[in-house]
Amino acid sequence: MDVFDAIIGRRSCRKFLPGAVSDADIEKILEAGNWAPSPANQQPWEFVVITDPGIKARIFTESEACRKKLFERSGWKWLEKFSIDFVKEAAVIVAVVGDPRKSGADMFLDEGAGRGYLEGCSAAVQNMMLAAHALGLGSLWFSLFEAAAVRQVLGLDAGKDPVALLCIGRPGTVPASKRKDFREKTTYLR
Amino acid sequence: MDVFDAIIGRRSCRKFLPGAVSDADIEKILEAGNWAPSPANQQPWEFVVITDPGIKARIFTESEACRKKLFERSGWKWLEKFSIDFVKEAAVIVAVVGDPRKSGADMFLDEGAGRGYLEGCSAAVQNMMLAAHALGLGSLWFSLFEAAAVRQVLGLDAGKDPVALLCIGRPGTVPASKRKDFREKTTYLR
Repeated sequence: MDVFDAIIGRRSCRKFLPGAVSDADIEKILEAGNWAPSPANQQPWEFVVITDPGIKARIFTESEACRKKLFERSGWKWLEKFSIDFVKEAAVIVAVVGDPRKSGADMFLDEGAGRGYLEGCSAAVQNMMLAAHALGLGSLWFSLFEAAAVRQVLGLDAGKDPVALLCIGRPGTVPASKRKDFREKTTYLR
Repeated sequence: MDVFDAIIGRRSCRKFLPGAVSDADIEKILEAGNWAPSPANQQPWEFVVITDPGIKARIFTESEACRKKLFERSGWKWLEKFSIDFVKEAAVIVAVVGDPRKSGADMFLDEGAGRGYLEGCSAAVQNMMLAAHALGLGSLWFSLFEAAAVRQVLGLDAGKDPVALLCIGRPGTVPASKRKDFREKTTYLR
């Protein structure tokens, strides 16, 4: 698939159909993530590939508790009824786990120090979503969970940061999405 | 260009050759960034496209001061002689500017609150680098600057976050890059 078609055609998928994702496809997606740029090429990511239904169920339970808490704290109506069934329905969840010690020289900045690892991991997630789309799969970048809970469920070290739970599977109906015209958000200094 | 070829073939470019980048190419790159995913589709980015040599020179001066400071603070040898001439040599610098108020529900998390905008902006930068590569251009995700200095040079509001200065131009020699095998960084929970 052409890279521009992948970038523009990719949608966030919140409805997955039954059906497994092949190991070969998962490996292509992981390899795509692994080629992301990062500060001083420190590659601050690792991947946990989750298909175990028991682990997925625990992630769902923790994420539901988080969703309710976020609704109570924010008062945002959409969070009250927001279904996160995609966590259970996705054939695979790939946890993209960051290492905050691999941020590069930005650790010494006055402002925004030490976020380079997060930027690198985010670039990796984006590569993975594009790869999934090119393979005919749907994906969702899920992040409404408490890191402490996910660390416990996945057995991660305290120093690691579960940046994203990337839900992947056979896509159900994916609603259209819009963007503001980029020209309205662009300034030229010529 | 095939999306996997773009993802695997893209390299960080630190040496640019003379030559302008067309407005049409810049628009394609901005559009690619604009199609990134973001929390609740809030599109927390805006773009400042810089070709003005005076502005580029000021960014270079501020970034050189930052590099020296980071060297002094870190003691990291590579920073002492690290050339950032690419800031002057790049035909175009696109500042990707984030709005921290557009982070979505993650603002109410216990840990990592309010970083969703940064993740969205990082996904946008990655899309832009892939687009630049597909257009035969080189790019570099530059982030060794103080946000306060860049805000002042670009005239940004205090509440905005200059996430990245994406340097774009005709690529000079780009060294090969390696990655650890992703299989060594992957755990399966089946």
